[in-house]
Amino acid sequence: MTRESPATTAPPEAPALYQQVADKLEWLIRGGTLRPGERIPSVRRASVQHGVSMTTAVQAYVELENRGLVEARPKSGFYVRPQIRSHVLEPIASQPTHAATLVGVGSLQSRLFDAARMPTVVPLGAAYPGAENLPTEKMSRTMAAVARRAGERGISYDMPPGSEELRRQIARRSPDRGLNLSPDEIITTCGGTEALALCLRAVTKAGDVVAVESPTYFGVLQQIEELGLKALEIPMHPRDGMNLDALERLLKTRRVAACLAVPNFNNPLGSLMPDENKRRLVEILAQRDVPLIEDDINGGLYHRGTRPRAAQSFDREGRVMLCGSFSKTLAPGYRVGWVVPGRYYEKVKALKLTSTLATASLPQMAIAEFMANGGYDHHLRALRQNFARQIREMSDAIASAFPAGIKLTRPSGGFVLWVELPEVVSALELHRRALKENISIAPGPMFSAKQSFQNFIRVNCGHPWSAQIAEGVKTLGMLTKRLM
Amino acid sequence: MTRESPATTAPPEAPALYQQVADKLEWLIRGGTLRPGERIPSVRRASVQHGVSMTTAVQAYVELENRGLVEARPKSGFYVRPQIRSHVLEPIASQPTHAATLVGVGSLQSRLFDAARMPTVVPLGAAYPGAENLPTEKMSRTMAAVARRAGERGISYDMPPGSEELRRQIARRSPDRGLNLSPDEIITTCGGTEALALCLRAVTKAGDVVAVESPTYFGVLQQIEELGLKALEIPMHPRDGMNLDALERLLKTRRVAACLAVPNFNNPLGSLMPDENKRRLVEILAQRDVPLIEDDINGGLYHRGTRPRAAQSFDREGRVMLCGSFSKTLAPGYRVGWVVPGRYYEKVKALKLTSTLATASLPQMAIAEFMANGGYDHHLRALRQNFARQIREMSDAIASAFPAGIKLTRPSGGFVLWVELPEVVSALELHRRALKENISIAPGPMFSAKQSFQNFIRVNCGHPWSAQIAEGVKTLGMLTKRLM
Repeated sequence: MTRESPATTAPPEAPALYQQVADKLEWLIRGGTLRPGERIPSVRRASVQHGVSMTTAVQAYVELENRGLVEARPKSGFYVRPQIRSHVLEPIASQPTHAATLVGVGSLQSRLFDAARMPTVVPLGAAYPGAENLPTEKMSRTMAAVARRAGERGISYDMPPGSEELRRQIARRSPDRGLNLSPDEIITTCGGTEALALCLRAVTKAGDVVAVESPTYFGVLQQIEELGLKALEIPMHPRDGMNLDALERLLKTRRVAACLAVPNFNNPLGSLMPDENKRRLVEILAQRDVPLIEDDINGGLYHRGTRPRAAQSFDREGRVMLCGSFSKTLAPGYRVGWVVPGRYYEKVKALKLTSTLATASLPQMAIAEFMANGGYDHHLRALRQNFARQIREMSDAIASAFPAGIKLTRPSGGFVLWVELPEVVSALELHRRALKENISIAPGPMFSAKQSFQNFIRVNCGHPWSAQIAEGVKTLGMLTKRLM
Repeated sequence: MTRESPATTAPPEAPALYQQVADKLEWLIRGGTLRPGERIPSVRRASVQHGVSMTTAVQAYVELENRGLVEARPKSGFYVRPQIRSHVLEPIASQPTHAATLVGVGSLQSRLFDAARMPTVVPLGAAYPGAENLPTEKMSRTMAAVARRAGERGISYDMPPGSEELRRQIARRSPDRGLNLSPDEIITTCGGTEALALCLRAVTKAGDVVAVESPTYFGVLQQIEELGLKALEIPMHPRDGMNLDALERLLKTRRVAACLAVPNFNNPLGSLMPDENKRRLVEILAQRDVPLIEDDINGGLYHRGTRPRAAQSFDREGRVMLCGSFSKTLAPGYRVGWVVPGRYYEKVKALKLTSTLATASLPQMAIAEFMANGGYDHHLRALRQNFARQIREMSDAIASAFPAGIKLTRPSGGFVLWVELPEVVSALELHRRALKENISIAPGPMFSAKQSFQNFIRVNCGHPWSAQIAEGVKTLGMLTKRLM
């Protein structure tokens, strides 16, 4: 039941010229070269400085306005907005201790997901995109149409490697990641969670040590715990991601069975590993024959520029296993993810058979259809802008409501913020008190096998700004002050 | 988005009176009391003998005709049909050796599933119901309708324990299994495969021994292998299932972490464990604090009488974990199964989160809807009759086409046959030669951790009888003769 009209994808997205100009100006503002209240160069001046047309310069200024960085004053020009959050520092690099630990973040996860089920709770806990940010109606119509014409295929097994049409659509977009995949290299999975679990199982056995980022997504720590593995936490820089010198030092003394990293927009930091670091990470691990499990689930959610490369694009030996998903961008409830397992392909395929046998057929077909007709790429463009705006709005609100001295990440992608509270504040206690006020947040200790980050919280920005959320942030700030 | 009209389920099914009469007569025929070619009592006589109306007696005779047991001769009455397969013996009870073994049935499974993807291959290998036996059109319409009106719920996570409506529908039917479940005891899963995998992981660790039936479904043996467990094979009777004396003897000398059994219609045997044995099985394991993983995926596919009880119905201590699925009865490609994990509930729920996070939302909603409006129970009634007939047709065809001396199971449920070939015939060689002729079968060694059953094959009867299948069985018989 493939489409009759030839499938098309959106052209690969280079950032528009005006976006490039806006990026440069944003850099100047964030770096403090242009300060709050200052007038920025006139449009005419900017067009000369950057060698672009007047129209493009105007577009760039409107873009900066949309990003919340400048404001137009009538008959006067554009001024840098008072950046409340620019007074707020970023957290410093993490410094986990060097022992490998059995993980134990158990029941907090359940509590987080339980809270996510309750419509009355302010949803700053579990990291998921608000339904208002997803193309609910379009996907419903696509699924209905696909189901009606799928016939036998809709109810039959779609055995691994899974839907060919979906794998083709994923492969077509792989050049955006610096890759050139064939559909045959891809296996579809029941969400990104299964993709990561299969990779971990393919290259480890109970008792092994896995190097992970610190902080990192608690779901991965839970997987490590359930498989009887140990987590070795690698320090992170809040913008550049994993500290590779630290990784290299640790690998000299410890046997590590695998490294699991989120080079593009680590959850909770939103950090982005520079390409040069990605290349070096792949090399460091290759020298020691350590497989890299690359979680690229957030890679499509960059706020500026173009899609960052996958570390797998620097791999020449099939040692990197790349994992993706549609849960953070399109339809969490469809449970469709995928993996490019490199040299571990056969092992991952065998594990997929014993884990869930196959991925549900219709959800794969519906997503493939939405990708083939261009709907997905169109949606992603809007989603990235929304997430970038929501991050800005939340940052401003937190900077206003919370006590002085807190620190905030400056994520360059994704939709979560990582907040460092004053040292005396217990994030777990804040989590408990907030839940009593019907506000869900994710306390920092969840993001570490050692339950470090006692005074950190992660804040979900996946929902459009609303009065409920504004009120929730105010209450959170007040609760934090009371704990000081 | 629940239905507005009150949900109804079909009344619990007692077998109709005419079916009870037919059962008795079938017993007499199979036991040899009524022999091939003999005239059976007149309708009038039968109505007196069984204390039923003439109409019921006629219905009973038509039922026997449908079962392929008798034929009407004009103006003369009903005669017992020449039962070709009645000359074919049943296999004897299995006698596995008593060492626990690391499993290794690997690549055969892939080959079987690959063959199932090819429309030109005669589908006697992988055990799945033919799409012609499934309510394809109705499910497509149901899914389309559910998707259209599901709104946010359709694309949102349905976190464990999963769809409440689906769990309610499953719980409502639990009295058919001798149970009285609440929806809160159930967790939905990505198919029966995930249900079984979660149970195994909940109660074992690498190196542990799991008692399994011999023969048993190769998917379970693969799971045991991938988890680093060892299989201890328990002998089976082809009609009554697990040999409990043997189990008890083995448990005296060996530490077993779990027992995995298919009391209702073992795959490949089609055996049905009598209720008294189920009670004893639960007791034997309780005495040694060994959890029972009960695979009841085929329990709804009984050919006669009513749904057999679950072993869990004899459990008072929460030590039995019951697994079900909709893959063998409704929609394999929806990937929806479920588990009632008893005292292991929290552990299974935690493992579900790290395995696949959640089960796809819309497939659960569509199945719940089909159950709520009575469609599922209606479909199951037809499906059972079809499977029973297909088993009979295949048995007759095999008995005609294969060399004398083969043995055939008499399954009382499910849709597979287990064929014992002459001892000199290698099932693996037959499998290879058959595949060259575009016929897929499942060779016996797949069903044993020790790769026993060298001269057995399993034949899928999930498809309606067709010229292609008839031709395939003839070719199989010929290939078998050549191997003698």
